[in-house]
Amino acid sequence: MTYAPVTDVLSGKLAVDSEVTVRGWIRSRRDSKAGISFLAIYDGSCFDPIQAVVPNNLNNYEEEVLKLTTGCSVEVTGKIVESPAKGQDFELAATDVKVVGWVEDAETYPMAKTRHSIEYLREVAHLRPRTNVIGAVARVRNCLSQAIHRFYHEQGFFWTSAPLITASDAEGAGEMFRVSTLDLENLPRTEKGDVDFNEDFFGKETFLTVSGQLNAEAYACALSKVYTFGPTFRAENSNTSRHLAEFWMVEPEVAFADLEDVAKLAEDMLKYVFKAVLAERRDDLEFFAQRIDKQAITRLEQFVDADFAQVDYTDAIQILLDSGREFEFQLNGVSTCLLSTNVT
Amino acid sequence: MTYAPVTDVLSGKLAVDSEVTVRGWIRSRRDSKAGISFLAIYDGSCFDPIQAVVPNNLNNYEEEVLKLTTGCSVEVTGKIVESPAKGQDFELAATDVKVVGWVEDAETYPMAKTRHSIEYLREVAHLRPRTNVIGAVARVRNCLSQAIHRFYHEQGFFWTSAPLITASDAEGAGEMFRVSTLDLENLPRTEKGDVDFNEDFFGKETFLTVSGQLNAEAYACALSKVYTFGPTFRAENSNTSRHLAEFWMVEPEVAFADLEDVAKLAEDMLKYVFKAVLAERRDDLEFFAQRIDKQAITRLEQFVDADFAQVDYTDAIQILLDSGREFEFQLNGVSTCLLSTNVT
Repeated sequence: MTYAPVTDVLSGKLAVDSEVTVRGWIRSRRDSKAGISFLAIYDGSCFDPIQAVVPNNLNNYEEEVLKLTTGCSVEVTGKIVESPAKGQDFELAATDVKVVGWVEDAETYPMAKTRHSIEYLREVAHLRPRTNVIGAVARVRNCLSQAIHRFYHEQGFFWTSAPLITASDAEGAGEMFRVSTLDLENLPRTEKGDVDFNEDFFGKETFLTVSGQLNAEAYACALSKVYTFGPTFRAENSNTSRHLAEFWMVEPEVAFADLEDVAKLAEDMLKYVFKAVLAERRDDLEFFAQRIDKQAITRLEQFVDADFAQVDYTDAIQILLDSGREFEFQLNGVSTCLLSTNVT
Repeated sequence: MTYAPVTDVLSGKLAVDSEVTVRGWIRSRRDSKAGISFLAIYDGSCFDPIQAVVPNNLNNYEEEVLKLTTGCSVEVTGKIVESPAKGQDFELAATDVKVVGWVEDAETYPMAKTRHSIEYLREVAHLRPRTNVIGAVARVRNCLSQAIHRFYHEQGFFWTSAPLITASDAEGAGEMFRVSTLDLENLPRTEKGDVDFNEDFFGKETFLTVSGQLNAEAYACALSKVYTFGPTFRAENSNTSRHLAEFWMVEPEVAFADLEDVAKLAEDMLKYVFKAVLAERRDDLEFFAQRIDKQAITRLEQFVDADFAQVDYTDAIQILLDSGREFEFQLNGVSTCLLSTNVT
């Protein structure tokens, strides 16, 4: 039995007429009047499901195949054939359908084959990776992560992990979460009556880091080029799509580098990872462009093809002042990450 | 000016007679009676420093070169020449030495060129990456991390990050750290008098995760093959070299897999990453074998060449019982990670 990821079949990596077994979940079932069923099976290895054409002469056709609903897990064996259908080059002429797991009640299965709102999906976090949108996000996120590590590795950087539990406040970048094992119902007190953090796990007051920068700087002053890529925390209670309490951040630190070097590094890195996503996850991006944001692909393509302009802070302010636009915040106080030497 | 990492010069990647500039820190300076100084310069790109041979006819020879001490940072330009010295193939015939940063007081510089104990190095965490041992550990750790990502990527796995702040206890794997923004001096109370976690940042009691497994399992049931690689926390107050409060852990989760598949995955992964370390960080491993653990290299070599034996739990217990050895803990209660289906 040759098991194959759906992506290997759909991409033509495997020869036509070879026999394979795919394993995954039913996205949909359609039965033709001619006594043939079409199963769309996804396994998450790529955006598209594979179509398995199931003839009614299989032993379990009536008893099982005709009862398959969205979300059932199956192993389908068959021959790879060129597909007459639109939108796919290959499909599977099934010779065996094994049901690995049933959905107990198709009526109440939370991931039915309809469009769900992002808000609804938050309520079913354990199942939402099975949707098109969360699956695509997960694959793109993996692609970004792999590309980030590859880029820095090729550039001679060493990955290093900064401690997340810390007693320091980095650059005072934000509000922090306290980390503690003290019993809140029985807080130890000093003679003065303050909470006694000597009794806490680390013998002092500790927090979740807001930046690995200080650690990365120490390593850069010994290994020359390092980066951190890990979780970071901000206890800011601002519920916008741009603020998360927990997020992953890249922080490169380079010894003997000036602003010019750092600006070039930022440009090179962004172009590298966007190129990787365009090349490796075209299928997911096409879905985003269709359903989420029309410019999902074109914006990235323009970015990787563009030359970056560099502009001094003073000139940037002047450009804004000259634009004739009104700004909500005063221009001389504008916070412009682009002009910071910190490529985060 | 062509800047080159020390590793590119020492490995022979750059042509003899070409002119390069290396940037790094002085490990040692030695002056010959003939009026030549030998600078050992490291930049962390590999274990060994490069030797720069500095003639006394440089403008700043008396005033600067002769005052260089361990830890000073320099830019040295010169011609790559074959080295007559033992232990290195290439060295730099210096034509220019630029001092980027001085060590103010060589007498009190904490990283003087002597051997330091690991305990002492804990006290100077911001400078210890400049030592042989911490530098080597950092490079090996980077190599392991890159190899782990490469291995899973090549095997069709998707990296996914599990939330670190959580309200669940995974498998009850260990004691947890509380994460909170409540004011300890002014804890909100419910009507019953308990601490009111509704008032906390997430509206409930939250902790640092002890495992990303539950999240990874949900993703595996949609993307088929996923892994997490990120920080994990245990609030166990056991101060041994095998227990850390914060550590990075790999957790693969595979759908449609049995114990056989998972055992093979563990074997393949370990062999892959050990091979990478043996191939890419031979220099650091040689230092470990010399100074820390004589078997640092041979143990890994034996591991990658060996066939893994698989043994049932019952048989394993019998082998131990038959060994005639005395055990501190009762054998039928023995905790054997090797036999778990969880490849962590």
